Amino acid sequence: MTDIEKQGSAAKEAARRLATCGTNIKNKALTAIAAAMRNNKSAILAANALDMDKARAGGMSAALLDRLQLTETRIDGIADGVLEVAALPDPIGKVENMTTRPNGLVIGRRKVPLGVIAIIYESRPNVTVDASVLCLKAGNAVILRGGKEAYNSNQAFTELMRAALAEVGLPQGSVSLVQDTTRDSVGDLMNMTDYIDVLIPRGGAGLIGYVAANSKVPVIKTGVGNCHVYVEASADLEMGANIIYNAKCSRPSVCNAAETLLVDRAIAEEFLPMAKALLDNKSTELRGCHETLAILQDAMLATQEDYYTEFSDYILAVKVVDGLDEAIAHINKHGSGHSEAIVTNNYAASQRFLDEIDAAAVYVNASTRFTDGGEFGLGAEIGISTQKMHARGPMGLEQLTSSKFVVYGSGQIR
Amino acid sequence: MTDIEKQGSAAKEAARRLATCGTNIKNKALTAIAAAMRNNKSAILAANALDMDKARAGGMSAALLDRLQLTETRIDGIADGVLEVAALPDPIGKVENMTTRPNGLVIGRRKVPLGVIAIIYESRPNVTVDASVLCLKAGNAVILRGGKEAYNSNQAFTELMRAALAEVGLPQGSVSLVQDTTRDSVGDLMNMTDYIDVLIPRGGAGLIGYVAANSKVPVIKTGVGNCHVYVEASADLEMGANIIYNAKCSRPSVCNAAETLLVDRAIAEEFLPMAKALLDNKSTELRGCHETLAILQDAMLATQEDYYTEFSDYILAVKVVDGLDEAIAHINKHGSGHSEAIVTNNYAASQRFLDEIDAAAVYVNASTRFTDGGEFGLGAEIGISTQKMHARGPMGLEQLTSSKFVVYGSGQIR
Repeated sequence: MTDIEKQGSAAKEAARRLATCGTNIKNKALTAIAAAMRNNKSAILAANALDMDKARAGGMSAALLDRLQLTETRIDGIADGVLEVAALPDPIGKVENMTTRPNGLVIGRRKVPLGVIAIIYESRPNVTVDASVLCLKAGNAVILRGGKEAYNSNQAFTELMRAALAEVGLPQGSVSLVQDTTRDSVGDLMNMTDYIDVLIPRGGAGLIGYVAANSKVPVIKTGVGNCHVYVEASADLEMGANIIYNAKCSRPSVCNAAETLLVDRAIAEEFLPMAKALLDNKSTELRGCHETLAILQDAMLATQEDYYTEFSDYILAVKVVDGLDEAIAHINKHGSGHSEAIVTNNYAASQRFLDEIDAAAVYVNASTRFTDGGEFGLGAEIGISTQKMHARGPMGLEQLTSSKFVVYGSGQIR
Repeated sequence: MTDIEKQGSAAKEAARRLATCGTNIKNKALTAIAAAMRNNKSAILAANALDMDKARAGGMSAALLDRLQLTETRIDGIADGVLEVAALPDPIGKVENMTTRPNGLVIGRRKVPLGVIAIIYESRPNVTVDASVLCLKAGNAVILRGGKEAYNSNQAFTELMRAALAEVGLPQGSVSLVQDTTRDSVGDLMNMTDYIDVLIPRGGAGLIGYVAANSKVPVIKTGVGNCHVYVEASADLEMGANIIYNAKCSRPSVCNAAETLLVDRAIAEEFLPMAKALLDNKSTELRGCHETLAILQDAMLATQEDYYTEFSDYILAVKVVDGLDEAIAHINKHGSGHSEAIVTNNYAASQRFLDEIDAAAVYVNASTRFTDGGEFGLGAEIGISTQKMHARGPMGLEQLTSSKFVVYGSGQIR
């Protein structure tokens, strides 16, 4: 057995214990993990300093350095998050649709953990703790494969979590960090069907596409968002401008940020300058169709590729459309099925948009930026699924579960 | 575009229409399909005769010939099944957990179709219709890739369904049969991520394992069942004997049939001869451990491999165990996570078995043979999932759906 297989085997063993240990002990573990974070800040910061030094020496950009950096405040934030998860209701054990069949069998569908969840992620070390405690609360063991840039920070967090688990009598195999941070270990995890029930890649479109296409272990795809705001002819134009500005500029690096603005021809001439006035606050680069350019002379001409692109930056594609049909067709063709918004005051248009747009979250008169487990009332989230199987949209504790049928008989045969 | 890509593209187009066409028109389509079956029996039987002639010439076994054969009665049975699906409640459009968030956003999770479902199956032509109407009722388009043995029968069924769809104004692309019945087309479907949302292989463990390991399209695994009956020391032994006899012998070829009997040492000497007396009715071959052989002298010695095998025949592996712990460990190690039963009169043992066995369906004092959509009250089923993601156990209409969040705003920004 290789090291990573040993981790898999230990995780599978631990998952059996976590599945049946009950809510109280899981919450005790989470409370111990939060305390460990607060009581070991200097050790965590020392480990993080090693990562930061190496990253600086390697010329990492300021934005990425900021993602990597831990501070006392950030560690407190992580600990607070752990306690919030401890306070969430435990999804495990709930039995749905329990009924007595005509033959007397009593049958219900009981929520159970998925088992072992492997998470592949990139540079942010807080994911190590955030993702682990969500998995643990739902009774799952977790195998973490973080990026090499955050290795020391991830290792420090993992050791603290494992010690806290041991403290309350849970197996340390419940959480483990893959030591190999090369692409090899991604390949290993994708093949470990004997030990891993679900693989969740978090990160860039390249990583996610690669894992989804090649994994033998079932995958939940997260996070790629090519989101649209469509301002329909009847819209309150000021509302439309505020929504596109918020959707594009409040945090352009995240997956629920908008990448394309669609606007009806009938209002384009009035609306586009209003939107631009706000977008200019962040010097947003506009890439528009020919009709856009006729209205906004200093916009660039968009390529076909631009309409498929998640810019993750202050760049916005713009297209003037003929009306609802063209807008829906454009979004269903170019979108990534993440979050899509219409701004309208037309009832029929709002209903058709909700019905016909094929995406995880569809909005009327609100910013796409709300697609988030916390905002949707699910509690913390482990990611935002853009696939249709298993879970779609923000995934909270409930989406980290499976089910089994429990059947109470009295000698029935068929 | 290749032919199969054209089918995929037409299916995706059709799926958009099916997603929003509403229950009435879907039910009209199903009613038209049932009528088409009843009104075209001679054409169906003529197509089936071509398949049967070829199969006989190729030396197909009597059991497989029986699966392939259609009769007037069987066609009536298929049509009845279609009407039963038409009568089931439509899962699409139901909105769960609709709530108003503190910021005024009204958010709910709406059930929507999966989209395009591809089904790969083997020789039984009735699957062509049974699976299609379940997909259609849940608003999905379906691409059928049946076995070459049933090609003519499948083609006849598919043409009738497409004509019935057209009759009610639904796109013919809603249902299509892959014309290439070589392994190549399985490979094509596994790669068609642009057009297919979910792939469901139905058939032998070889096919399912191959597809699950190699598909880029998300897969739902169905049907492999290595099921156990465990007779615990406190059991009513007559009940135990009836249950293992039913679980093994009522239909040994199906996935919910039992393959291994586990019995507690304390009762083995009394119980095994009772069980054997019933199993002898079907000349069941017993393959036991050494302790079993000491009690049942004419049993064969089981290999380790036997305990991992889905015999699908009148063959039963037998093992004497030390008690509940060993039984649970044996099942979780050797089982396929399908259906597992304990026979017991001990309350604590029943609870631990339900909690600790990791399978789609876990039984106390009943035969594993009940794992079935109809028996569980789900209506017709498209298969029995043995994976943990998305759906586990019998899959009815509800399991052929996804969801999207619908969000009603009034200008909210974040």
